[in-house]
Amino acid sequence: MSFFPASLEKLVEKFASLPGVGRKSAQRLAFHVLSLSDAEAQDFASAITEAKSKVHACRICQNLTDTEVCGICSSPNRDPSTVCVVADPKDVAAIERAREYKGTYHVLHGVISPLNRIGPDDIRIKELVDRVSEGGVEEIIMATNPDTEGETTAKYISRLLRPFGVKVTRLAYGIPMGASLEFADDATLMRALEGRREI
Amino acid sequence: MSFFPASLEKLVEKFASLPGVGRKSAQRLAFHVLSLSDAEAQDFASAITEAKSKVHACRICQNLTDTEVCGICSSPNRDPSTVCVVADPKDVAAIERAREYKGTYHVLHGVISPLNRIGPDDIRIKELVDRVSEGGVEEIIMATNPDTEGETTAKYISRLLRPFGVKVTRLAYGIPMGASLEFADDATLMRALEGRREI
Repeated sequence: MSFFPASLEKLVEKFASLPGVGRKSAQRLAFHVLSLSDAEAQDFASAITEAKSKVHACRICQNLTDTEVCGICSSPNRDPSTVCVVADPKDVAAIERAREYKGTYHVLHGVISPLNRIGPDDIRIKELVDRVSEGGVEEIIMATNPDTEGETTAKYISRLLRPFGVKVTRLAYGIPMGASLEFADDATLMRALEGRREI
Repeated sequence: MSFFPASLEKLVEKFASLPGVGRKSAQRLAFHVLSLSDAEAQDFASAITEAKSKVHACRICQNLTDTEVCGICSSPNRDPSTVCVVADPKDVAAIERAREYKGTYHVLHGVISPLNRIGPDDIRIKELVDRVSEGGVEEIIMATNPDTEGETTAKYISRLLRPFGVKVTRLAYGIPMGASLEFADDATLMRALEGRREI
């Protein structure tokens, strides 16, 4: 039973339904909303409906966008012949932050994960194959995470793309910059040794 | 610079403006909203505007309500001659959960706190004095927190109400139920000794 007015209780429940937000935090957030001005609260509410109604997948790369084709795919400064394949829109943001990559992306929206019943048809692999089969793509950089599911997905996709004669590469994995060898885990050290390069 | 579409970025910013929500959590929450159905997202947005527009202070006790007079003040089963004074609507919820108290409340919406520049006029003390001066109130139970600010507020209000001849009491403070003496702090032990009762 709740001791808050119904409309406040409903807002608390909505916040509590968000991932990682417990009932106590949800109360705190709801009280914060009550402390906002009417305009600010209205602005918050419309941010939710606007994001939900406007944001969709880019027709080409499947990244989130509020235009038909995303800013990266439509930019004349980006090389459409190099496609970096990532699991998630947040990975695009991470790579863009490095300001190094000048190619385009393909967002899978997930990885193959038999344990979670996510098969190849549940993520945007078909869209990638279609894109490659249309021609113009020379290199696919698999940038899924270096964990079991990310590796499996990368291997699956590289096998699938072999018939098209496109070059498939994988991001380099090794000791992170600034880290100490002493504290690197075995798997990372192994990958760093395997990936050694002449200097 | 952001690498998300503008409307998604705006939603992330809105979540990040909530207390205790950092940018990473805000991203997670915004992506969760995108994963909701249109109806669920709409429902979330209207929960915000509804709570903001409907919830206001009860005319009598200043607790949050979405009716003119709150459920407790308007209930024939509650004794309006006993008024429990609390700092916050959450305190009303806490006391109600104990299902013991049958009187009514007065919510101050804060405590006197010179350090935070909150004086007696910044919280709902005047409304309490008006209520007592109208007559019908026999006992005021001061239930502010047992910290410096709560104590100061309780003392200030009890002095203010003295001319009206109303009985002013304070909640009992002592060892919490189920706790061990060994781990009780000095201040609590002192309060527990002071407040000892014959059995």
